Amino acid sequence: MNTFGRLFRVTTFGESHGPAVGAVIDGCPPGIPLEAEDVARELRRRRPGQSALVTPRDEADEPQILSGVFEGATTGTPIAVVVWNREQRPQDYEALKDVYRPGHADYTYERKYGVRDWRGSGRASGRETLGRVAGGAVAKKVLAAFGMRIEAATVQVGEVAAREWNAGEIEKNPVRSADPAAAAAMAAAIERARAEKDSLGGIVEVRIIGAPAGLGDPVFDKLGARLGAALLSIGAVKGVEIGKGFALACMRGSESNDPLGPEGFTRNFAGGVLGGISTGCPITARIAVKPASSIGTPQRTVDRGGAPREISIGGRHDPCICPRIVPVAEAMAALVMVDAVLGQRALRPETIPPLG
Amino acid sequence: MNTFGRLFRVTTFGESHGPAVGAVIDGCPPGIPLEAEDVARELRRRRPGQSALVTPRDEADEPQILSGVFEGATTGTPIAVVVWNREQRPQDYEALKDVYRPGHADYTYERKYGVRDWRGSGRASGRETLGRVAGGAVAKKVLAAFGMRIEAATVQVGEVAAREWNAGEIEKNPVRSADPAAAAAMAAAIERARAEKDSLGGIVEVRIIGAPAGLGDPVFDKLGARLGAALLSIGAVKGVEIGKGFALACMRGSESNDPLGPEGFTRNFAGGVLGGISTGCPITARIAVKPASSIGTPQRTVDRGGAPREISIGGRHDPCICPRIVPVAEAMAALVMVDAVLGQRALRPETIPPLG
Amino acid sequence: MNTFGRLFRVTTFGESHGPAVGAVIDGCPPGIPLEAEDVARELRRRRPGQSALVTPRDEADEPQILSGVFEGATTGTPIAVVVWNREQRPQDYEALKDVYRPGHADYTYERKYGVRDWRGSGRASGRETLGRVAGGAVAKKVLAAFGMRIEAATVQVGEVAAREWNAGEIEKNPVRSADPAAAAAMAAAIERARAEKDSLGGIVEVRIIGAPAGLGDPVFDKLGARLGAALLSIGAVKGVEIGKGFALACMRGSESNDPLGPEGFTRNFAGGVLGGISTGCPITARIAVKPASSIGTPQRTVDRGGAPREISIGGRHDPCICPRIVPVAEAMAALVMVDAVLGQRALRPETIPPLG
Amino acid sequence: MNTFGRLFRVTTFGESHGPAVGAVIDGCPPGIPLEAEDVARELRRRRPGQSALVTPRDEADEPQILSGVFEGATTGTPIAVVVWNREQRPQDYEALKDVYRPGHADYTYERKYGVRDWRGSGRASGRETLGRVAGGAVAKKVLAAFGMRIEAATVQVGEVAAREWNAGEIEKNPVRSADPAAAAAMAAAIERARAEKDSLGGIVEVRIIGAPAGLGDPVFDKLGARLGAALLSIGAVKGVEIGKGFALACMRGSESNDPLGPEGFTRNFAGGVLGGISTGCPITARIAVKPASSIGTPQRTVDRGGAPREISIGGRHDPCICPRIVPVAEAMAALVMVDAVLGQRALRPETIPPLG
Repeated sequence: MNTFGRLFRVTTFGESHGPAVGAVIDGCPPGIPLEAEDVARELRRRRPGQSALVTPRDEADEPQILSGVFEGATTGTPIAVVVWNREQRPQDYEALKDVYRPGHADYTYERKYGVRDWRGSGRASGRETLGRVAGGAVAKKVLAAFGMRIEAATVQVGEVAAREWNAGEIEKNPVRSADPAAAAAMAAAIERARAEKDSLGGIVEVRIIGAPAGLGDPVFDKLGARLGAALLSIGAVKGVEIGKGFALACMRGSESNDPLGPEGFTRNFAGGVLGGISTGCPITARIAVKPASSIGTPQRTVDRGGAPREISIGGRHDPCICPRIVPVAEAMAALVMVDAVLGQRALRPETIPPLG
Repeated sequence: MNTFGRLFRVTTFGESHGPAVGAVIDGCPPGIPLEAEDVARELRRRRPGQSALVTPRDEADEPQILSGVFEGATTGTPIAVVVWNREQRPQDYEALKDVYRPGHADYTYERKYGVRDWRGSGRASGRETLGRVAGGAVAKKVLAAFGMRIEAATVQVGEVAAREWNAGEIEKNPVRSADPAAAAAMAAAIERARAEKDSLGGIVEVRIIGAPAGLGDPVFDKLGARLGAALLSIGAVKGVEIGKGFALACMRGSESNDPLGPEGFTRNFAGGVLGGISTGCPITARIAVKPASSIGTPQRTVDRGGAPREISIGGRHDPCICPRIVPVAEAMAALVMVDAVLGQRALRPETIPPLG
Repeated sequence: MNTFGRLFRVTTFGESHGPAVGAVIDGCPPGIPLEAEDVARELRRRRPGQSALVTPRDEADEPQILSGVFEGATTGTPIAVVVWNREQRPQDYEALKDVYRPGHADYTYERKYGVRDWRGSGRASGRETLGRVAGGAVAKKVLAAFGMRIEAATVQVGEVAAREWNAGEIEKNPVRSADPAAAAAMAAAIERARAEKDSLGGIVEVRIIGAPAGLGDPVFDKLGARLGAALLSIGAVKGVEIGKGFALACMRGSESNDPLGPEGFTRNFAGGVLGGISTGCPITARIAVKPASSIGTPQRTVDRGGAPREISIGGRHDPCICPRIVPVAEAMAALVMVDAVLGQRALRPETIPPLG
Repeated sequence: MNTFGRLFRVTTFGESHGPAVGAVIDGCPPGIPLEAEDVARELRRRRPGQSALVTPRDEADEPQILSGVFEGATTGTPIAVVVWNREQRPQDYEALKDVYRPGHADYTYERKYGVRDWRGSGRASGRETLGRVAGGAVAKKVLAAFGMRIEAATVQVGEVAAREWNAGEIEKNPVRSADPAAAAAMAAAIERARAEKDSLGGIVEVRIIGAPAGLGDPVFDKLGARLGAALLSIGAVKGVEIGKGFALACMRGSESNDPLGPEGFTRNFAGGVLGGISTGCPITARIAVKPASSIGTPQRTVDRGGAPREISIGGRHDPCICPRIVPVAEAMAALVMVDAVLGQRALRPETIPPLG
């Protein structure tokens, strides 16, 4: 399914080397100020070629809003956004059309569909995330109107981990780290991997600030479950944790339970979610990002006939995906939060601040 | 939303101290052999009082099938299962009705709904999982007919980690470990925590065996995202990873990409999922389980009026939830897999083995 | 799918001669006063044996609420309602198990599922509507809190049509006509059909009073489309019209367009819906109800082997279903309206009156 | 919600005087031959200016496929279709921006959303149906691969009713009647209404040929209910009936029950649906189409401030919408049928013919 959300729904489309990618955003409340630049700004953040650490491909990625906006604001009707694929060079991929790249979705797409659009990974390309980011750009405008915002940063690259969270630093360094000192070490590690025709994994953290208590559903749609689904749906993400996450496995209840004081919770190991519902504290999630699959190092694989092959993937590829996943993770978190806030408005509007 | 799934849907209901809990399973193919004992067997596995390590409450939990089964097999109509709550002792909870227990959903339910059924955590009780396990029991019968099965085990309790996976051992020890040596150490650690009026977290691993390649959807409903949502929707689960998960953050692409040989993948760091679609390898997921919230150790909190309180939670509670989460995790994984297999049957029935 | 609704969802289950039928109502706002008698009252209205005109079977149909209600009001968690089938006499149907009754779903269920629960039509029995009426009973309580109510009546039986709408009369006559004079003629027509071992069709009208303008969605979920789906999902309903409906085919635009004056619409040929959205006028729909399929008159059919058979269906059956469809139609309309009002609350809460 | 369908989903977007309208079609099986001309052919059928009977506006309406098709066939990924709005003349509507046109959605949109895109009815324009027809064009290709097809025709205009169904005639006359004699009388009636600055209603019939028995769901998603929702979601449609529909109100069971013979049903008053499931006979539905709302005759209304106004709507408008609703009704029926056939494939693939 290429649609995400219940009340605020985003449907994405597009292959990397087809004519265009895009999204239709449905269920957006009317009266939210929106212009193409709001979307363009977010798209630029996920764009390749922003620094030496990411792929130097030149993608202008100018979004065009086709519907749902009138006189500078949303109308309540679906907002279609389209981004044209300027670079359509399928011939670059001719050599790979009969071979399954390790770590990629080539093999599984073919098993699922019987056919595969082999031009630049087709729908499995990172360009698929443009539609998510477009949807997230609209979602962020809605969240802002409710007094909420989202921050995300790379908190680990290979063995290098950040030690502080200084949100103002994130956009100032190419790895999108909130810790300037760690940022330099991360960049060096990525450069090293690139020089060795290899790639590196990492961890990205997402923080949702300003969410009132009471968002999320108690059983199957726990806020953590919805966030988990949203974040695990991003290509290359293989793990997610809410609050202290896997570290809780080694804790005792007397350590992990967050105490409550007259002013609310006095600690936030729960990551802002208890019983699937927001506590009013910042909501925090971390995602495990696997090393980029496209590497120049030779790898063993097979072709469509099952014959062994060795391949080295040349061309322009990110050695570490974390910096570009940051805006995608923000977008997915934003979609979840808008859905949750609208759902709670349906249930008990008096618990949600008026749209500002 | 108390419904999970698209084509195979489970709707659960019930509070811990109301008359009953249960589930309605909709979208089950006709002709699957099913009797109450199939459900009862699974429910017994999540039942309290199975060993000294879990709460000694006596819950018979005999399921009654109210519909959807005729002459020993499913008919295609909804299967309602109800389990009566034999023990309704709300008075046990009178003392807690005005205070927010740390780590519990008391505070967030009240913020969300304005009211709260304080009798034994109400809907936020672990008894809510009975409906999941009932649905999972039906799902497992469907999976079996397609040649698939699910295994789950406790792989870590506090600092004690399992080192092997011997599926035949799991039901032989009270912690449900697949490693008999680790099982003894895990049990000792749990006993120690209990003696100290405290609790312990841990990790549970789920393995899906026999899934054909091609299951799952490529974008928002990646198989890992669906499994993640399913598992993170279980109370106390605060993290999930697919395959190598968070360990991938420290790897390089040349290490993490699974090579392909003529017989298929020669390694399975991806956990059986690439691009959101099953590869044909076992599908593996691990979940972080937080320490049980109910502990005898005194904790700081507030009452409904905001006044500080100290509480110690007495009574019968599991010091480590992992052993009882094992069957719940299996159930949730089973729901995801039946949905995926039916979805792929709609798309390309020729890729799915006939119901056996 | 046995679930209806988006935000306010009802999932029903149960076969006529299995242990029970029932419903799970999910998404109900908290704080709505509700007790079993609210559901029982509505169930009695659809019960057989209320008059000489309907089947004399004795079904007590006492509903039991299993969850979701605490201290006399809804809590926001799912409300499960179960009604036990007191009369399970499958032997009555032994003779029919290998033959397809004309006008019934015997043939189509078998083609769809490969199997069929032949005991009293199984899931295709009119008893399936108990779950709908239970859900509708809860929905009506929610609507009442928003200042809305629903009226329905039989407006035609065979050739006899009602000429007035006096809502106070509906429950005073066995056909549930709002026109006392027509009621007598309708009753006579039904008696005649019964005496001749035959059955009669008719028309039921539903009116929704008090709905604010702005409910419904403009494209696929037009309010008329949602009402149409809800009403056409009732067994035996083969047509639906909103406002003037089919009569509009013979009108001109200058006749059919409702004029607007300073106080709002000065006529309501549109049936309270324009562009899929409520106008603030009463919302009106009429449904075509086919003659009851079970008749004593001999009919030609075939058995499961394809051999010709003649059957006369004996036993206790309604010669005209309209009187008993009235509460079912109300229930379905109520489900649609609660969903619409909650949806609009999510979008623009300021347009919906506070829950009273 | 601007998405229709469960397994085969169409999401539409676009206002009449914005940059473009379009659709995203998701869930289409891979391997279905598809090119832009397949969509263009259907779009031409709903285009204005095809005859003297419909509005002479010139809309080229050339669709562009942005994704989901590779080497002439669907790939299983979402198919985005966009149609640019060549004529954007909002100034034509300046005069109407502060007045509510009777029979239009002006008033209700404003009540719902608080704002309204007044340029040519915005989202409530008939151009919204372009997305439906694009989706239907893809659906028809899928149906064809399953051996099914859809026919629709105008069967009544004002008082003029067709008497025969000769499918080969439909595209030969401007009213799209299957009865050439009636077609001439219908055309004359429409011309008369136009000359009198008025409009006419009518009835359109849809027939689905080749559907196997067993499609549809027995309770809330009865095939008739799904078709009803689909057809009632088309602007100007105010009624729907399946098979004999409202005529059943005046029948007796001995007349209305379709007998079964060794070769199947020997009559089809049920319109191919029993108990919500297809019987294997042609599935037939008829829809009531209201007279076009835009008429030159002066009408009483109010402006946004509530002051009385008289308006005459000039410009290019269809005096009878039936001819152009024909392809839209076919499209909606096609969407329902593809969804039903895929749903049944998930449940019991052996009952569905292989994709041809």
